[in-house]
Parts: sequence; C-alpha cells; structure tokens
Amino acid sequence: MIKITLPDGSIKEFENGTTVLEVAQSISQGLARNVISAKFNGQTVETKTPLQTDGSLVLFTWKDDEGKKAFWHSSAHVLAQAIQELYPGVKLTIGPAIDTGFYYDVDFGEHKISENDFKKIEDKMLEISRQKHEFEMREVSKADALNFYKEEKNPYKVELIENLEDGDITFCDHANFTDLCRGGHIPNTGIIKAVKLMSVAGAYWRGDENNPQLTRVYGVSFPKQKELKEYLVLLEEAKKRDHRKLGKELQLFTFSQKVGQGLPLWLPKGAALRERLENFLKKAQQKAGYEQVVSPHIGQKELYVTSGHYAKYGEDSFQPIKTPSEDEEFLLKPMNCPHHCEIYNASSWSYRDLPKRFAEFGTVYRYEQSGELHGLTRVRGFTQDDAHIFCTPDQLDDEFKKVIDLVLYVFGSLGFENFTAQVSLRDPDNKEKYIGSDENWEKAENAIINAAKEKNLNYIIETGEAAFYGPKLDFMVKDALGRSWQLGTIQVDYNLPERFDLTYKGSDNEMHRPVMIHRAPFGSMERFVAILLEHTGGNFPLWLMPEQTIILSLSEKYENYTKKVLNSLENHEIRGVSDNRNETMGKKIREAEVNKIPYMVIVGEKEEQNGIISVRKHGGEDLGTMSVEQFAEIINTEISQSLKTFEV
Amino acid sequence: MIKITLPDGSIKEFENGTTVLEVAQSISQGLARNVISAKFNGQTVETKTPLQTDGSLVLFTWKDDEGKKAFWHSSAHVLAQAIQELYPGVKLTIGPAIDTGFYYDVDFGEHKISENDFKKIEDKMLEISRQKHEFEMREVSKADALNFYKEEKNPYKVELIENLEDGDITFCDHANFTDLCRGGHIPNTGIIKAVKLMSVAGAYWRGDENNPQLTRVYGVSFPKQKELKEYLVLLEEAKKRDHRKLGKELQLFTFSQKVGQGLPLWLPKGAALRERLENFLKKAQQKAGYEQVVSPHIGQKELYVTSGHYAKYGEDSFQPIKTPSEDEEFLLKPMNCPHHCEIYNASSWSYRDLPKRFAEFGTVYRYEQSGELHGLTRVRGFTQDDAHIFCTPDQLDDEFKKVIDLVLYVFGSLGFENFTAQVSLRDPDNKEKYIGSDENWEKAENAIINAAKEKNLNYIIETGEAAFYGPKLDFMVKDALGRSWQLGTIQVDYNLPERFDLTYKGSDNEMHRPVMIHRAPFGSMERFVAILLEHTGGNFPLWLMPEQTIILSLSEKYENYTKKVLNSLENHEIRGVSDNRNETMGKKIREAEVNKIPYMVIVGEKEEQNGIISVRKHGGEDLGTMSVEQFAEIINTEISQSLKTFEV
Repeated sequence: MIKITLPDGSIKEFENGTTVLEVAQSISQGLARNVISAKFNGQTVETKTPLQTDGSLVLFTWKDDEGKKAFWHSSAHVLAQAIQELYPGVKLTIGPAIDTGFYYDVDFGEHKISENDFKKIEDKMLEISRQKHEFEMREVSKADALNFYKEEKNPYKVELIENLEDGDITFCDHANFTDLCRGGHIPNTGIIKAVKLMSVAGAYWRGDENNPQLTRVYGVSFPKQKELKEYLVLLEEAKKRDHRKLGKELQLFTFSQKVGQGLPLWLPKGAALRERLENFLKKAQQKAGYEQVVSPHIGQKELYVTSGHYAKYGEDSFQPIKTPSEDEEFLLKPMNCPHHCEIYNASSWSYRDLPKRFAEFGTVYRYEQSGELHGLTRVRGFTQDDAHIFCTPDQLDDEFKKVIDLVLYVFGSLGFENFTAQVSLRDPDNKEKYIGSDENWEKAENAIINAAKEKNLNYIIETGEAAFYGPKLDFMVKDALGRSWQLGTIQVDYNLPERFDLTYKGSDNEMHRPVMIHRAPFGSMERFVAILLEHTGGNFPLWLMPEQTIILSLSEKYENYTKKVLNSLENHEIRGVSDNRNETMGKKIREAEVNKIPYMVIVGEKEEQNGIISVRKHGGEDLGTMSVEQFAEIINTEISQSLKTFEV
Repeated sequence: MIKITLPDGSIKEFENGTTVLEVAQSISQGLARNVISAKFNGQTVETKTPLQTDGSLVLFTWKDDEGKKAFWHSSAHVLAQAIQELYPGVKLTIGPAIDTGFYYDVDFGEHKISENDFKKIEDKMLEISRQKHEFEMREVSKADALNFYKEEKNPYKVELIENLEDGDITFCDHANFTDLCRGGHIPNTGIIKAVKLMSVAGAYWRGDENNPQLTRVYGVSFPKQKELKEYLVLLEEAKKRDHRKLGKELQLFTFSQKVGQGLPLWLPKGAALRERLENFLKKAQQKAGYEQVVSPHIGQKELYVTSGHYAKYGEDSFQPIKTPSEDEEFLLKPMNCPHHCEIYNASSWSYRDLPKRFAEFGTVYRYEQSGELHGLTRVRGFTQDDAHIFCTPDQLDDEFKKVIDLVLYVFGSLGFENFTAQVSLRDPDNKEKYIGSDENWEKAENAIINAAKEKNLNYIIETGEAAFYGPKLDFMVKDALGRSWQLGTIQVDYNLPERFDLTYKGSDNEMHRPVMIHRAPFGSMERFVAILLEHTGGNFPLWLMPEQTIILSLSEKYENYTKKVLNSLENHEIRGVSDNRNETMGKKIREAEVNKIPYMVIVGEKEEQNGIISVRKHGGEDLGTMSVEQFAEIINTEISQSLKTFEV
C-alpha cells in the first residue's frame, strides 16, 4: 500500500501501482471525467501513470494552467502528426506548449506553407483527434533513439538526443506517430474538440541565426468549440484594446528612438491623465496621513551598497555614473526606499511621532533587455506611486489594514471590481533564508492574514513566497477581458531598517527599530495606465477622461455660441473641446467616437435660439436637449458614482 | 591732441597726457571728487594715469563694482603695510580684492594672530589712511625686482616675479611701503574712512596643500563709517536668513552624505511648499495655453550628439551610463529641450497648430565640483520650471510678450518688486559666431526689445552677450537685503529646430522651421526656494506658508475645542497645526515665532465658552477675539492681496 497526500492535506491509502485516474475516481466521478493531467511529488505525470511510492498528488483539469499546458502539449503532437501526414518528408524539431497555445518548429524542406493551408491542417488534426488515440510513454536507449531519427534522416532530433543522457530518454506514441518527448499528456486525443492555427513565422533552429531557418506554426486548441469562439472574440477585442495602439490613437504617449527604447514620453493628454491619477491618490493619501517628499533620481553607489541592492542587482543594472574629476560613482535609482530611509534618518524620532508615512511619485530606472520591452508594461523608466511607512511593531496591524483600505479605494474608483489577493509567507522549514526575529515574523504574518480576513479579501496563502526581508500581500486584478494583472503590492520589511540603522525612542526611553511597509496601489503610473487602457478600451471613468465632452457645431455659423457653451462648461469644471470645422455632423460624430469622448454636445440654430444644448453619449444614446446646468448635473452624478471621497 | 570717447558716445578732445582726473574735472566737479578708478580702452587705470592715445574712457566711483574693486585692492596694500609695521619680519605673498572686500595671505613666521589682534591692525590701517598717501606705480626690471625681495628674504614674491616677463613688472609705492602690483588704485589712502577685519583662516601658498600654510586675513573697508555699520547689520541679517540655516530650522530640506552632495532631499514641509509653487505656476500656464508633458531623466548619448550638448559639455558632465549586455550609452539629462524637441517631432504640425507650448517641471542633473556646491543655490540635481514654445517667426513677438507677462505675474505674486532686465544681443561685428539668418536675428532681437519696451521693463542692452543660438532676456531681482540674483530667463533658439529638423507646414503648403523659446520664470525650484527664503527670511507670502496658523491652547483642557477649531480652519482651506502641550503660553508663542507661523490662534476658557478665537500675528500684533469666519476673511484678504489670478 502507498500513502497519497491530497492538496487539502488529507491522506489516503491505495494499492501500489494505482493510477492517477483511479485516485481521481476514488474522489468523485466528476473529477475522474475532467482530470487531464497531474503532478506527483512535484513531477508532471499523466492520468494513466501508476503511482509506486508515498507522495503528494495534485490533479489538474482544463481550468488549471497545468491542465491547459498538458492539453496544448498534446495538441502539438497532433499538429506534428497532421503535418507529417500532409507533407511527407518534413523534419520535425521541437513543439512546446506556450501561454497562449502551442507551436511546432518544422523544416518543411521543399514545401512552403501559408495561412491558406491552415484549414487543411486543422481538418487533419480534428480527424486525428476524433480517433481518440491514447498517448503512450516508453523509455528508449540512446542508441535506439538515435537510430530511429537517423533512419528518418532528421538531424534536429539527432542533435537533441545526442545532448541527452542514456537512460533518460523517452518517446511518446499515439496513433502511428512517435515523438521524442518528456511526457505530460492528456488521456487521449479525443478531448481536443476545437483547433485553430494562428500564424506561421520563421524561426532559426535553436534561436541561432547561423542555423537553418525553420517554419514555426502557432496553434491553439480547446475542449469545446464554444471556447474557441469565445477565445477568438477575446483576441479580437484585446487587439483593439492594445494599450500601445490606443495610446497612439488617443495621443497619450510616444517613444523616440533617439531618447531610447523603453523610455516613454508622455504627450499632453497622457501627462494630464497621469496627473489626474496622481492628484486623486495624493488627495486620498493626505487624508490617510501621508506626507509627500521629493528625492533625486540618482544616489551614490554607497547608498545601494548599504541597502544591499548593489550586491544583489548591481551587475544586471544600468552601470555606475562617474564624475569627470572626482572619484565618485552614482547609480540611477532603481527604487525609492533607500532615499526615504535617509529622509527618515535626517531627524530623530520618538514613538509618539510614528507612524511616519513618506510618499513620493518617484521615477525609477531599471535595466531591461531591449527584447523584453513592451509598451508601457515593460519599460526602463517608470514612476512608482511609492510610499514607505515607518511604524512600531505594535502599529503594523493597524497600518496594514489602512493600506488595504487605500488600495481598495483606488481599485473601486477606477472600475477594477474583480480581484484576489495573494499572501506570501516565509517557508517555516527554511527560516535561515529570512532576516528578522521569529517574533517579528509571526507578528507581521498574523497582521497580514488578519487584515486580509478583516477586510474580506478573497485571498490565497503562498507559503515560502515571502521576500527574504518580510511577508507581503499582492493584489491580482482581472480586467474586462478576464486577463489577470498583478497590481498593487504591500510589503513588510525588517531588512532596510536594520541596514540603515533606523531607530526611534520608545516609551521605555530605549532606542528601537521601526518596521517598514513598502506599498504602491497603482504599482507604477506607466503599468497602471496601460492596464487601465486595456481594461476600459480607452473609455476611462469619466473623472479621468482627457476630454469629457466635445462640442460639435452644425456649421461655422455657430462658432460664437460654441465658445459660449465651452466657457460655460469650463465654469462647471467640465473638460471640453470643440469641433467647428465645416464637415458633416456624421463625420464629426464618427471622429469623436474614435476619440472615445464620452459626451457629444451638438449645437445649431435651435440650440442657440433657446440657449440649450443637445447631448449624445459615446456609443450612440441620445439624451435630448437640455441646459448646460442640467448637463453639468448629469456629468457630476456620473462622476460621483465612481469617484467617492476617501474616508479614513 | 587725443580723442576720448565717453560712455554716452560723446567724443572730447584733450591734450596728450591729460590725466583721468582732469578728464573727470572737465565733465563736472562732482564727478572729479568722486572718481576713484577708471578703464581706458578696457584696461584698468588710475585717476592720475596720463592718457596718451585716442580711446574710450569709463570713470568709476564707489557706486560701481570697478570702483569698489580699486578701493578694496588699495585697502589690501594698507592692510599689508599695517601688518608689516606691527609684525616686523612677516613675509607678504598676495592680497587681492574680492566680491566682499579683500584679503592678504601672510607668512607670519613666529607670530600668531587671532581676532584679538584685529583692533590693533584696524587702528594702524586707519592711522595710515588718514595720512593720505598717494599710490605711485613704477616699472622695475626683473633683476631689480628679484633683488628687492631677495633682500627682504621673501621667497613667495621671488617665486611670483620669476614667473613674470622682464619689462612687464610694476611695483606700487605708498608711504614707505612697496609691493609688487599691477595697478588699479584709488587716488590716495585718505578716502578709506572705515575698516573692519572680518576673519583669519589658513590658506596654502598657491592653494597647494604641499606648500607652506599661510595666514589669510579677510577685511572690508568703506568711504564712510555709516556704510560699514550698515554693512555689518546687513551681514548679520544675511546670516540669519541663510537659506541653509532656515531650510534646516523650518524642516524644508536636507542633504545626505550617502545619497550624495548637492542632491537635496525635500522633507514634507519643503515638498509641500514646492508643490504649491508648482501648482501656482501650472495654473497660470494652463491659462496661458501651455500643455504639460513628462519626459525621462535620461536620454541616449545620440540625443545629445544631435542637440550638440555632448560635443560642448560631454567631458565636463556626469559620464555616460552603460547597460550590462547591450552596446548602449545613456546620459543623465542636463536639460529638457532635446526631449521636448522629440515630443514635437512625434506629430506633424501645421501653422494652424502653432504655437505649441510644452511645459515640464523637469529634474535635470549637471555635474559641479563638490567644492562649488552651496545649499540649494549650487546643486547637482535641480528641477527647472521649464517650457519650450514652438512658434512661427511671425508669432515670436507676441509669444515673447506673453512670456514676460507670465514672469511678471510670478514675481508679483512672490513679492519680488525690485528687478531689472538684461537684453543680450549678438555682436554685429562677429556675426559668424552665431547661427541663424540675419533676418531671423533682426526679427528676434526686435521682438525682445519691443517686448521689453512695451512691458515697461527697466532694461539694459548687452551687445555680444547673446547665446550663439539666439538672443535672450534675463531678469535680475533685488532681494530685501539689496542683493541681486538672476532669476527667470527667456531665450530664443534657432539652433535646436535646425538640429532636430523640426518643421511645420505653412499656409503656403511648404515645410518651414519653427522658432523655439526656452523659458523658466523661477529658473529652478531649488534656487528659487533658496532665494525666496533669503528674501523673506522664511516669512513667505501667506498663500505659500507651510503652516498658516497654529492653535495654542491655554492648557490640555481645551484639546477638544482646539480640534474643533482646527477642523473649522481646514474647512476654510486654512493650513493649521496645534500645540496642546502642557507648556506656558509664553514658550508656545516663542516657538511659533521661531517657526515663522504667520498667525497664532489662542484658545482658552473664554474662547471655548463663546465659540470664538483670539488671534495674534507673527511679530506680536494682537488682533483680538473673533469668529473663525472672521479670521478666515482676514486670511483670504491677505492672500488675495499678493496672489492674483493670472489673466491672459
């Protein structure tokens, strides 16, 4: 008999050799129907794998990332088989699962394929799938493996096998198809019900441009036809919402080759949007007792030697800045905490002064390889909505809850309603990996868990995921397309107070170490604006819109009245522009729609005579005629629905 | 006969050999009485110098910087004579005039002097002065000069003379005292009526620490006793107002050795003050049609190669930042203009879109030697209130006037009432030193002069002082102590539009070059706050004060009422703090005075019972009891007197 530990901590006994599927059946028939992959003692196994030792088992269905991985890995085998059958003589290389499906790199030899061939390949894949072939793993000797592919005249697989150890080589068979493979399959091809090839691209063998060029065929597959359809709609929508595309169309930001990759330039509308976000948070932070500080964007190398960042990240960062005639070295600041520690150290503090909450919209610079850069989500310079709270250990509990309140306020005001929290604790079996006393760790971990509970967060606990300097809580938000983004982090830190020798005088007249909390509700202005763009498709909450309204005049004749209305809107603190061009109303409306302007104010003879305006919402709803005051009321009501005042 | 051109352009004829003093006498007896030094054809001469060629002559009195220089240079001779008479055997080295008086570096040998000896030396100096000794220049051969000082056993003067050319050596005699000297004296010692030695310090011969240490004696002198007294009062006041001292006392900013010299850290009160200044200017700029942009603090080296800054300043600047794995070089940005040019270039523009006015509170970094750093006035990182206006040549005139309006608004709102402007034009005899067409230069220079005239500025024209890329206008403000500071600059630029190939489509459908205006009313936030601190002694205009009021409760009993009043003040948007400590009212008031808080609100039993407050102004004036509403009215009235709305 063997003992199997399940994720809920329960332990069940089974006969040695029981398969994964049989374990699933012992739990429920539903699970047995849906299980498609598993991990046993941390190793990927298949549903038919017999279990032969004690161990812990996690079962995966299509809903799990690991389940999708097995599904797409198996689909890659099917793709390879289909290609081999349709284009005899092609040479297969590698074909992994990726985050968005799978691909296979193929040497097509004489053949050339294009999108026109996709249908044929997809049909063949579905034909194979319907045959419900099981995937069978088998060990082969290195000699046999090499012989197999030498006979197939496939130098790529031969090269791969030559780099493997004898005794460590497995093949996978399904139908009449065999591939070199490490395993991790679904039970059979039959559950692949929908297949879509996405694109072809060139790819060098092993990514080296001196090697032959292969053809990479990208695909995705699903257990239901409906899911494929939904996926394609989502993909189309995601393309439309790509923040790089919207950022250009809405004139929010740009990049310049001369300034440098990954260094955004904020155009007027983007800079104003960003400032509105900053002011919104500043206002709430002021209420919450934060104080703004300003620190420089560089610091002496010594500052980062003290903080420990230099030893850890120095070599992989922007390199030191030397001065012309003195023996000095500065670094671009990769974070604001060391500067804030020095600000804390500029005064002496008593327990009565704490907590001190220093906030700064601090622009930091971190080197990323140019290939890794992506729009505003992966940049080399970005502005954190940073703050550091210095408090006594006893205040940690309360401070942590207050930070959660602030983060929830931010999410609520910006329309992120769907989010979860991850609490990262230290690994209790490896305490030596972490700094700080057991007592402080317990205090901090309890503070975070209690705060998460008390604030009714939907949270999971990840043991061993804490930073070495303290536990943390991260927020994951789901956007309108169901994609997850990490936004907002709260971290407890015992390390920097130690390294910077931060102190306060306690009520016992002795000197003590404060605890530090790092927090950033937005994360960074760049990343947040990018996510907000993709979440809203550019239809920001009204209070945030660059232009809340546009006045469209029926003709140039109404220019004066347009100006009057614009002035009147300004007096009501409504941001507006006007379009007086001699164009058709249809064209003006279409352009305003593209520019995502939430309200169109139409003025013509009737409106001027009666001192009123006609209002049309973005998307088409006609609100009819009204006075500017009535319109201002509509705007203010809409704003107050999303933008509440932060209450401490 | 020789022809002498005077500063007003008039030409007078004199006999060859006429002295400077005689020329002064020919103009007026008053001038002849006051003239103490002169420049002939750009060379410093003395009043008794005979003029022997045609040339232009400028006469100086004590009021002129050049006059003061001659006065203090002559006083250094008197100091040296006095020391030599009082301490026989000392060895004199050098003794120049400086901006604030003069000093002499002396090898005192066995003697030691301290502040206790100042009176004795001052008395001896005044005794010599009263004897009305004339200064007589004479040429000496190198051999004779060396012999003179070898006999005196003075190795320092010997070393100086050894480095001079024979035929180029002059001595100056007065009384029985002789010194190696290039000239530039007042008529006689008799006009030195007041003398004050300020300090002694060590100084290495020739500034090299391997050389012997000398004693530097600092002094200052005046033509009237009253002027010395006023100077000492001013000095005392300037010490009290030193922005480094006030910045610390008022907790506005600090420096950290770890972060680095010359890199200010703004503490909460300073950061808030700075933000108020920024918001004040942003508001006015928005009205004036500026648009905020945001750009990174680094740029690729290529950006500065394009702008020309790298060739000009690269070697003397912070050195390039390399990346770990790519062949890239970035520079800390020393100015924002190249970034703003790239923002301009991100779109295409028509003449109808211009002017574009891009504004940014942009933090820039410029290397200064550590010995040159001084508080906030000379730093290595600072935030410019920068903007760049891109306009057509025809718009330049109007834009320039608009910028002057904005600068005058800034000065007015911040209490700088005493200022002059300097218009810097190109040298018409060296046109090849400048870039841009004659037509554009004429347009720009006329635009600036017309604008200065039309805005009734008190301005002077400096020919040949323009930057190579365009003419400019600088503002010099006088602070409350009469000291001049350069604040605010407006510059026309033809260079960057050329280098960045900036264009717009004209009404003729052809592409044209825009003109650029650089402008910064504050100059930089750091420098401006420093000057404002020294100008106001920390008593900022009320709208800017970190704390506008402090509530002093008569005892802890009134804590609740104090909170109520504080809330009520907050509702009136008055910034306040409270002092509820169990201290005497006298002590609380004294501390509030030190902290420069403009209004003290005193609350006790009477006030609580009647729901009123007692108000005391900074400095002592008692405003009596009143309601919070009445107090808010007083505050708002005072604010509205200095802080007007900017009207376009």
